[in-house]
Amino acid sequence: MRELSVSTDSKIVLLVLDGLGGLPNEDGRTELEAANTPNLDALASRSDLGLSRPVAAGVSPGSGPGHLALFGYDPLKYEVGRGVLSALGVGFELGENDLAARVNFATKDDSGRISDRRAGRIATDRAAKLVDLLNQNLRLDGVEVFVVHEKEYRAVAIFRGTGLSDALSDSDPQRVGLAPLPVQSTNGGIEAEKSAELANTFIEEADSILADYHPANTVLLRGFGMHPALPDFDEVYKLRAAAIASYPMYKGLARLAGMEILEEGEGIAGEFETLKENWGSYDFFFVHVKAADAAGEDGDPVRKATVIEEIDDLIPDLLDLDPAALAVTGDHATPAKMKSHSWHGVPFLLSSEYTLPSAESFGERACIAGSLGTFPAQEIMGFLMGHALKLNRYGA
Amino acid sequence: MRELSVSTDSKIVLLVLDGLGGLPNEDGRTELEAANTPNLDALASRSDLGLSRPVAAGVSPGSGPGHLALFGYDPLKYEVGRGVLSALGVGFELGENDLAARVNFATKDDSGRISDRRAGRIATDRAAKLVDLLNQNLRLDGVEVFVVHEKEYRAVAIFRGTGLSDALSDSDPQRVGLAPLPVQSTNGGIEAEKSAELANTFIEEADSILADYHPANTVLLRGFGMHPALPDFDEVYKLRAAAIASYPMYKGLARLAGMEILEEGEGIAGEFETLKENWGSYDFFFVHVKAADAAGEDGDPVRKATVIEEIDDLIPDLLDLDPAALAVTGDHATPAKMKSHSWHGVPFLLSSEYTLPSAESFGERACIAGSLGTFPAQEIMGFLMGHALKLNRYGA
Repeated sequence: MRELSVSTDSKIVLLVLDGLGGLPNEDGRTELEAANTPNLDALASRSDLGLSRPVAAGVSPGSGPGHLALFGYDPLKYEVGRGVLSALGVGFELGENDLAARVNFATKDDSGRISDRRAGRIATDRAAKLVDLLNQNLRLDGVEVFVVHEKEYRAVAIFRGTGLSDALSDSDPQRVGLAPLPVQSTNGGIEAEKSAELANTFIEEADSILADYHPANTVLLRGFGMHPALPDFDEVYKLRAAAIASYPMYKGLARLAGMEILEEGEGIAGEFETLKENWGSYDFFFVHVKAADAAGEDGDPVRKATVIEEIDDLIPDLLDLDPAALAVTGDHATPAKMKSHSWHGVPFLLSSEYTLPSAESFGERACIAGSLGTFPAQEIMGFLMGHALKLNRYGA
Repeated sequence: MRELSVSTDSKIVLLVLDGLGGLPNEDGRTELEAANTPNLDALASRSDLGLSRPVAAGVSPGSGPGHLALFGYDPLKYEVGRGVLSALGVGFELGENDLAARVNFATKDDSGRISDRRAGRIATDRAAKLVDLLNQNLRLDGVEVFVVHEKEYRAVAIFRGTGLSDALSDSDPQRVGLAPLPVQSTNGGIEAEKSAELANTFIEEADSILADYHPANTVLLRGFGMHPALPDFDEVYKLRAAAIASYPMYKGLARLAGMEILEEGEGIAGEFETLKENWGSYDFFFVHVKAADAAGEDGDPVRKATVIEEIDDLIPDLLDLDPAALAVTGDHATPAKMKSHSWHGVPFLLSSEYTLPSAESFGERACIAGSLGTFPAQEIMGFLMGHALKLNRYGA
């Protein structure tokens, strides 16, 4: 890719409806099939269609691997730890030397065992005050520490210093009635040993700061992760790439890949407005719409279809911008029937001047019969680059 | 897989119709398409369909690689030597240190050249007596030797000892009129050198024991193999796995993967009865039906269709057990038209609560248009694990 990609003026749009893929609901139709989408259907009749697989057969991807695959990275090679994702989720700009971990406020009983892994689901405003308390009082030798609150009992800790490693085990024992575990190096390396010591000191200090704040009298750390060393998007594809998303986590994932983050307008229409305003300044736009996934997670096929219909209304404006290549897809399936991410194929539509159309509508069953067949999501960037005529011929 | 798999109570059935795949016969339909299968067709209309590829484009798999792929192992990475397959085929319980080789009784002329590679297709009862003779008289220093008769001129030899290797060439010159070849190490290692010496001594001793038994006055050895170091099935998938098969070779292949072998009832109905009786005791059942392949090998599309119809009759009983995930497929194609294993895609049906149906019948052409597309057989275990909700989400 690096050797074949060339910089041109043509524009690519990767429109991601989070959790787009679905399964048949009571009426036998998936959310996408049930949605009234005249614009997407008309577009599908001029497009290449297929079903993409985010990670591997039977494997349901998290948002991290789902998006890495969409951006063309091997999601089995590049891992994004829970801590990193949490840091991205709160909008923390993770540096290359930062070590992040997910923090849960929890309850420890007199015998030192964890009696509640979520501190009685402590209220958000109370937890936020405890986070302030930690930031004011907690000091570690040789590193900076940032604690950022997420929501309720959840926060994220970032250790900033040199020579840190994320080869660390969790302190969370995963079950109540057990004592918290010491954080340990999982590779025996000197950097991991040092990092484990820092994490354990962090917990010790937090325990003493929180002693009087039962039920949130301790913290559990898990999902240690560092900034993955992703090859830079601009360098691999020679694209000036921009991301438009309403949730910090997706902005963060795009930033990991080296994209510029645009200040998005409000709602889905606002995101499309941002796209229009910045059309001249970039070659590649990743546009992320969260609401489809949320409806799927809630088991609400009707709401998910409504989100898809809202997108459909905006498609003509997007086409007016005349992108050389436009993909409409998801990062994974979130069938309303399952109320969770799933392993199923994700509908994929690619519009350009160079397609081989085979269907009259955009839906899972139409995509099965599409010209792209079933393929790894990691190949999407290749298709987009090819259709935008941004790849040189390979070989003479 | 190892990191994501979780043990649950849900049940998986992998029903293998050996050689299921076919090609159009005179009436334009494959054996599966021609068979009258109301139950499989109804199931297909609620299932995911696809065509699986056992090994590689254009490559016809033997039973070994065909089944390793079905069990989720890379058939190009893990090889099952001819000798190992023969040992499994006669029901020999191969240990980790055993070296197995296929033995042919053959005829050597006065000049020491092979004049018949099959000893005039010596009768089974006569060959069996010669095998007894070899077992009574043949002794090798430092290893135990077992010779087990297969059928007619075929037998298998197992060398049991420490420090053996299967990096050995064949003694069979493959053509008449040539002298047998000395068995040689193919990697120069000390274990292979020692094993080659043992094999050559075995042939020498056999020659002297068989001297008066023309036309079976010598043996040819080929296909040296040892127990492949397959990751244990239980460990990779965390499944209590059981195998139901009527032929020793398939029981042996399942045992290589770490499955428990159940005592099967008689005929196909008997195998299904065994499944029912053991339903509560395992999470995974591999059920193997041989007769479809045998009919294909005989070039008999009608008989092959009849076998498929016999299975179809038993499908309702199987569904009554309510497996969380059920696959109906083959280990390879055996088109009656070709009278042999072939490289063609193998029809694959996966029934669960979480499918995306796209056809009204079970057949090769319906599978082409299925939601799973064409995919490596090695992915089948991933699909089954996903559909049975036995895989954790990958990544946060």
